[in-house]
Amino acid sequence: MGNTERSLSELTEYLDAELIGDAEHRISGIADLQCASTSELSFVNQESYLQYLPQSATGAVILNADFADKYAGNKLVVANTYLAYAKVSALFESLSELPVGIHPTAVVASSANIASNAAIGAHCVIGEQAHIASGVRLYSGVSVGDRASIDSNTLVHPNVVVYHGVSIGKNCVIHSGTVIGSDGFGFAPSRDGWTKIHQLGGVIIGDKVEVGSNCSIDRGALGNTVIADGVIIDNLVHIAHNVKIGKRSAIAGCVGIAGSAIIGENCTVAGAVAINGHISIADNSHFHGGTIVTKGNTEAGVFASTPPMQDVKKWRRNSVRYTQLDEMSNRIKQLEKQLKSLLPAEPEEK
Amino acid sequence: MGNTERSLSELTEYLDAELIGDAEHRISGIADLQCASTSELSFVNQESYLQYLPQSATGAVILNADFADKYAGNKLVVANTYLAYAKVSALFESLSELPVGIHPTAVVASSANIASNAAIGAHCVIGEQAHIASGVRLYSGVSVGDRASIDSNTLVHPNVVVYHGVSIGKNCVIHSGTVIGSDGFGFAPSRDGWTKIHQLGGVIIGDKVEVGSNCSIDRGALGNTVIADGVIIDNLVHIAHNVKIGKRSAIAGCVGIAGSAIIGENCTVAGAVAINGHISIADNSHFHGGTIVTKGNTEAGVFASTPPMQDVKKWRRNSVRYTQLDEMSNRIKQLEKQLKSLLPAEPEEK
Amino acid sequence: MGNTERSLSELTEYLDAELIGDAEHRISGIADLQCASTSELSFVNQESYLQYLPQSATGAVILNADFADKYAGNKLVVANTYLAYAKVSALFESLSELPVGIHPTAVVASSANIASNAAIGAHCVIGEQAHIASGVRLYSGVSVGDRASIDSNTLVHPNVVVYHGVSIGKNCVIHSGTVIGSDGFGFAPSRDGWTKIHQLGGVIIGDKVEVGSNCSIDRGALGNTVIADGVIIDNLVHIAHNVKIGKRSAIAGCVGIAGSAIIGENCTVAGAVAINGHISIADNSHFHGGTIVTKGNTEAGVFASTPPMQDVKKWRRNSVRYTQLDEMSNRIKQLEKQLKSLLPAEPEEK
Repeated sequence: MGNTERSLSELTEYLDAELIGDAEHRISGIADLQCASTSELSFVNQESYLQYLPQSATGAVILNADFADKYAGNKLVVANTYLAYAKVSALFESLSELPVGIHPTAVVASSANIASNAAIGAHCVIGEQAHIASGVRLYSGVSVGDRASIDSNTLVHPNVVVYHGVSIGKNCVIHSGTVIGSDGFGFAPSRDGWTKIHQLGGVIIGDKVEVGSNCSIDRGALGNTVIADGVIIDNLVHIAHNVKIGKRSAIAGCVGIAGSAIIGENCTVAGAVAINGHISIADNSHFHGGTIVTKGNTEAGVFASTPPMQDVKKWRRNSVRYTQLDEMSNRIKQLEKQLKSLLPAEPEEK
Repeated sequence: MGNTERSLSELTEYLDAELIGDAEHRISGIADLQCASTSELSFVNQESYLQYLPQSATGAVILNADFADKYAGNKLVVANTYLAYAKVSALFESLSELPVGIHPTAVVASSANIASNAAIGAHCVIGEQAHIASGVRLYSGVSVGDRASIDSNTLVHPNVVVYHGVSIGKNCVIHSGTVIGSDGFGFAPSRDGWTKIHQLGGVIIGDKVEVGSNCSIDRGALGNTVIADGVIIDNLVHIAHNVKIGKRSAIAGCVGIAGSAIIGENCTVAGAVAINGHISIADNSHFHGGTIVTKGNTEAGVFASTPPMQDVKKWRRNSVRYTQLDEMSNRIKQLEKQLKSLLPAEPEEK
Repeated sequence: MGNTERSLSELTEYLDAELIGDAEHRISGIADLQCASTSELSFVNQESYLQYLPQSATGAVILNADFADKYAGNKLVVANTYLAYAKVSALFESLSELPVGIHPTAVVASSANIASNAAIGAHCVIGEQAHIASGVRLYSGVSVGDRASIDSNTLVHPNVVVYHGVSIGKNCVIHSGTVIGSDGFGFAPSRDGWTKIHQLGGVIIGDKVEVGSNCSIDRGALGNTVIADGVIIDNLVHIAHNVKIGKRSAIAGCVGIAGSAIIGENCTVAGAVAINGHISIADNSHFHGGTIVTKGNTEAGVFASTPPMQDVKKWRRNSVRYTQLDEMSNRIKQLEKQLKSLLPAEPEEK
């Protein structure tokens, strides 16, 4: 990361691209075609962007061979435009590095094990026997519980809370306000109300996992909640105790996953989906936004449950009918029966 | 703000009201008619409240001319009762002022620019080149990233996180736990899993914006996420990268707005609504609670999508029929066709 | 709490169980039958677990009299297995005790009243006239506003924010990131946009309440938001101003409850439910996951509103029909009318 200028020849080498244009031209950022200045880089990964090329002041364009002859200016020709954009975005990251070492206002337990090149920000609190590995950066106000462990090069933004015993892998990013390892929602009913089931399990987060802001990931009741390598999670996501999420699955914002649900690998769960507890979702499943997932599935598929949005007057009328659906179905059956008695006794159409 | 007594004559002047009653009567707070004591002020802004007037011990009532003759006690007659209540509520705010100056436990970067009459609470952390303007109050534990800027008289509650480069306008209120400027959910798929698209844009929040607690407002991928002047946002709201929200729109609790959605001005979005990405919502649109907004609209309207709540037995039966709707429709068509063959060939009714 | 070994005879006495087996056998934790080692305790509270008994290495099993003859190893026979598991889980809680006293980095107002055996963690901030009772533990980074009060033995996890004037009862647990007492979403519309209604009420939380992580509980506008004794609340739950939740009700993750809603006692609200404002829910009501609760009820019942999840192709076809439901209903009526004219004029079937 850094925030420095690069020449097109440097970017070409970094992206393993083919450069057509001025190798010495210098780039200091990325912008879309409509906003870009001559010191910025843009990209075209779909036909609809081509219209902006003639007017664009952009310094250079990333595109693939199919689009290369549409633009006369500086261009970096690549195989996968969107991936090239992702890679180059890292060069212009504007988040400042945190200085290595432990900020004097941080409170670190004497038995904690902090790598010498980790960075512990202001007002962090690190518990007994916690392990903070090489290259980890904890921004300010992060709380790491006893015996928790954060593996190398993971970046934790301000005010994240990592409870005792939680394990986070390498190269993860955890955004602010996220809580990992809070108690699962486990209570036994009794005559005196709810008796707490102490949550004795942990949370294991793999490598290269990204968790957005203000997420809640609960510790297991017995055994662990597990987020596998490469999973990406958006903001305000609730992950209950003993959930397992398979490798590279993507969970969008405002999703809730109830206890002991098992999500396969490479699933994509759109925003505001709610997934029931104790069900299994097959690898490569996709759920549309807002779906209430009450049952598991064993084969990949695309699933949805929300009815379409309507003008409120139409919605009111149709909603009333929704509560009469079973009756409507019975009336159709009755009509079919009655009609049959009137029709000639031919073989029926299907 | 403050928490002091006022005479009815002072309140009358403050509200530009007409006083009928004892100008010297002193008021120390607001309560509804059923709870109010003689030192408290109440209001009647709808007919249904009139029934409580005879028994109420209230010290004075705010009401409009239509209701004025219904009450014999002290009254402040105003044009807009609810607005008068809002205005007077500010006089009895009980949140303490934060002392001006920088708390000794705050950690402030040397290049940060803090106005001399700003208040920086305990354990705040302010980044390099951050700008905290005149009259701003940051309560404890607030993190402000490098180059972020908070304009005059904005109030930020404990443990809010403002990421690097975020800009917040004047006279805003940001509640605890809210995170502004976390990374948008941008990743390019590749053979090795998800490659992070570094989020190089920012967040621009206008003047007089209120954001509730535990909201997440992501920074733009390229370009900014923009919340215009006068927008109000409730708790646990997710605003993804590059969303734009127009002036004075109101977003209720648990709403999620996906990336690059554009919400017009003066929209009202009820609780638990989810708005799809890359769509545009016209000014003055209203969405009922729980609506899943999959398509944009170009004209103001009122929209809904959720089916009605039912007793669970009825719900089960009707839900089964929901999955047979298309078949039911085809059966109706078939019935119509068959019946037509039996009916005399007259012009059909419409 | 603690994390020490116990003999089966100690556990038997603690649970008021009947021990069949080796009273001296020592137990250091709990695990399910499939994972348990000989130093761990398991439980069987349903028939489906019996299959794991033969292969299990578990050190002892909690079960009831019906299952007692199914297992030849060490067993603790109890009346209510799940409740016994809950009780025993407390013995193996791994969260470390916080040392009594005020951490030197905490910032405590001079007028705050802190019990001598309370524990105030690193970087906590306690306001003027706040009251922290005996046995309370505030983990790091907790903010307690002026005049707030936390009663005996309540445990507050890192980075929780308790606003001014909020009252929390005895023996509660509040998880990280939760905000109690933020402003309710109250604004009066006016020509110049929204005018804030200052939220002058408070929040009163009873005894033995558990609140998960990243919840938002707003203060009342006038009067209080009230969470009664024994209520349990999961993660990412939004509770708006002036909501009342009755004793022992359970609110699962991602639920939103709008302003002034009244929830009865012993209700169970499943995940992702949204409850409208200004409605009353009867005691003992249950809502299925994802239900949008638009109306109150006066008698206990079980309610749901979400349509079933479908394969996306089927869902698309049926969704179109959903918008035509009223028309379908009218076509059925028309068919019935036409058919009636063709059928002999007999008394109709019902």
